[in-house]
Amino acid sequence: MNVNFAERAHNHNWKLDPIVRSLLDTDFYKLLMLQFIWKNFPQVHVTSEVVNRTVSVKLAERVGAAALIEQMEHVRGLRFRKSEMVWLAGNSFYGTRSIFEPKFLEWLERDFRLSGYEVMEQDGQLVLRFSGLWTEVTMWEIYALAIVSELKTRSALAELSELELDILYARAKTRLWDKIELLRGVDDLELSDFGTRRRHSFLWQEYVVEALRAGLGDRLKGTSNTALAYKHDLEAMGTNAHELPMALAAMATSDEELRASQYKVLELWQQSYGGALLVMLPDTFGTTQFLEGAPDWVADWTGQRVDSKDPMAAGDEYIAWLMRRGRDARGKRLIASDGLDAEDIVRLVAYFRGRIRFSAGWGTLLTNDFRGCHPRGEDTLEPISLVCKLMTVEGRPAVKLSDNARKSTGPAEEIARYRRVFGSVAVEGALVVV
Amino acid sequence: MNVNFAERAHNHNWKLDPIVRSLLDTDFYKLLMLQFIWKNFPQVHVTSEVVNRTVSVKLAERVGAAALIEQMEHVRGLRFRKSEMVWLAGNSFYGTRSIFEPKFLEWLERDFRLSGYEVMEQDGQLVLRFSGLWTEVTMWEIYALAIVSELKTRSALAELSELELDILYARAKTRLWDKIELLRGVDDLELSDFGTRRRHSFLWQEYVVEALRAGLGDRLKGTSNTALAYKHDLEAMGTNAHELPMALAAMATSDEELRASQYKVLELWQQSYGGALLVMLPDTFGTTQFLEGAPDWVADWTGQRVDSKDPMAAGDEYIAWLMRRGRDARGKRLIASDGLDAEDIVRLVAYFRGRIRFSAGWGTLLTNDFRGCHPRGEDTLEPISLVCKLMTVEGRPAVKLSDNARKSTGPAEEIARYRRVFGSVAVEGALVVV
Repeated sequence: MNVNFAERAHNHNWKLDPIVRSLLDTDFYKLLMLQFIWKNFPQVHVTSEVVNRTVSVKLAERVGAAALIEQMEHVRGLRFRKSEMVWLAGNSFYGTRSIFEPKFLEWLERDFRLSGYEVMEQDGQLVLRFSGLWTEVTMWEIYALAIVSELKTRSALAELSELELDILYARAKTRLWDKIELLRGVDDLELSDFGTRRRHSFLWQEYVVEALRAGLGDRLKGTSNTALAYKHDLEAMGTNAHELPMALAAMATSDEELRASQYKVLELWQQSYGGALLVMLPDTFGTTQFLEGAPDWVADWTGQRVDSKDPMAAGDEYIAWLMRRGRDARGKRLIASDGLDAEDIVRLVAYFRGRIRFSAGWGTLLTNDFRGCHPRGEDTLEPISLVCKLMTVEGRPAVKLSDNARKSTGPAEEIARYRRVFGSVAVEGALVVV
Repeated sequence: MNVNFAERAHNHNWKLDPIVRSLLDTDFYKLLMLQFIWKNFPQVHVTSEVVNRTVSVKLAERVGAAALIEQMEHVRGLRFRKSEMVWLAGNSFYGTRSIFEPKFLEWLERDFRLSGYEVMEQDGQLVLRFSGLWTEVTMWEIYALAIVSELKTRSALAELSELELDILYARAKTRLWDKIELLRGVDDLELSDFGTRRRHSFLWQEYVVEALRAGLGDRLKGTSNTALAYKHDLEAMGTNAHELPMALAAMATSDEELRASQYKVLELWQQSYGGALLVMLPDTFGTTQFLEGAPDWVADWTGQRVDSKDPMAAGDEYIAWLMRRGRDARGKRLIASDGLDAEDIVRLVAYFRGRIRFSAGWGTLLTNDFRGCHPRGEDTLEPISLVCKLMTVEGRPAVKLSDNARKSTGPAEEIARYRRVFGSVAVEGALVVV
């Protein structure tokens, strides 16, 4: 009776349903790291690669290279919009104004570009390789991961009828709300959405973040997704990642320089951001050796993020270390971000209550938990462990040891050399779920 | 960008969101009984009442009389549409053509009217009373129950935010699909939707029926809802209800006539519908006495519906009775319709497999199972036990004993007289859930 002719015609003719709709649709720490790289390493060349750690899932059978390239080219065609630039310049992040320098923002608006890339197929896996200036390569990480993740989602959704899709989302929403009800009971909860990279889809991440806010109020501290923070007046969360210590380590020319590089990163970061954003990520080459060998000023940093060690063990270790260094742990932050689910978060809040300011960075099991939701019982919508890792820096291999040997990256002989230099032992850690 | 101005303006201005959109939106057996009454008792006057058996729920606090009257008047203004009449005349029901006589259909289209009614409030309960010719009163039953049920739903929904509504329906859909998955495993399942009267809403009943068809294929035998059968090309299911034996009993002028009336109904029914639709409902005054005293031709009927006795006990009793009467139960039908849920259905199919042709008439727990789905944990969306019962026939009280004393209706002294006449004992049956 009341047909919307324009909408109907448009819906039957659109060219692309974009996955990344804005350059802000990335983790906030990528922008902080981009400014850091732009400032300190504007001429360094790197390569990086998207890798699927869940080898049992043959990604190339689900995600077509043509669709992938179409989405990647769409991102390359995006520019920061005026209103987005105004927001980046005028907003306070972590209570600090003008975190981005005017010159950086000028460059971001005018000169920022994404590097070229290659798409290949190997053993049923998609390989996506980026190379160019570090400033051009680094931002690909989140865009590329989110694109691959959502294309995988779409290929699974395409098999389902309208009713089956309805059931699927009903189940996922039921699951989500059950988690929120569990977390509602925890008064001193602090959590953030860290789930951009492996999300089911952009719209699902947005739904999840809005549900969290409605259900948890200000116990939701923010989201790592800059576009969602902008759109929904949330705090943009995150500081830095393994990429930085890995790159500085790769550029080191001696074993001494290599060992020192992990603290050199912190020094440079502190210079770049003053007293703000001082959250360290000590597990790149093993947390224990990092803490033991750290100069005393490292204990003045605001906190640490735990990304590969058992969070309870890592928190205990950090608290004991702070005590030995004469610092009060109760003023420090401990952020867990490795494969958390709601039950883990409840346990961790209770475990650290009164000892350290714990907060949860909730990732894939927040934004892509469709386990058991498929209406035909298939596993095509379960999350996989997709990562984008730095491969080389100025032609030299990049390495991560991590506290969990399953998460280490780099050529075997380099991993061995790093282990020798850092004195880290290979700890076979927990199975990597996501 | 692309605002549908017409739709927006319409949505902000509509007068009524009707609950009953068509006179076909009723249980099919009401139409069969209407023809029966039109044919055999066109001048009889009756009264009937909507009663809420769940006294803990104060209906008047949730459902406003004005909204109720508005919906009732909407139904009174409806007429059978031409295409609906063509369908009633031309469709086969239970494999039989022309089940409705041309003269009846003519009357239905031209002269059918709904009686007047009173709306009152007593002890926090809504009382809805109908009086008039039986042909004018009888059809109110389903329209009125569905209206009260959906108005109660709407008052609960009005408390919820958009996100909470989304969670609510996600949970209800998850529940529904879990039930369907359970039933999918039962190959020789036969079930029908019997959930019109106490449904959550018309649209939810429609969703449920479509989901059942998608999930169970032709194991869904049909729906009692004539409008849904018409719209979705399903079989319209149902034959007759307690209303008929209750009315004939009320009209009996002696104890002998009273005792005989329960078989007189069957005789008249058989005359009206020939060999078709021969499903009896023996529990009106107690199943056991009904079967024991039945003339031999009653054992030739196609089957029975079990509406108040434990279905296993009732089925066993029926099978044993058929055997004593020299009939093969394997050719007969047993239809259970009292408060069934999916697990009950699975158990009953297994119990009667190979013994009798069992099928389930799935009612309120199909079309209104929102138990535990409320996003704030409230019980406002849980189904209640709403019934519409015949109160008087030609000024004499109408009585039902039932196999479950909790379901008996009528004045206490009349119930006592009926018990004496029928020799039925009061059996305190299962708690009435819905």
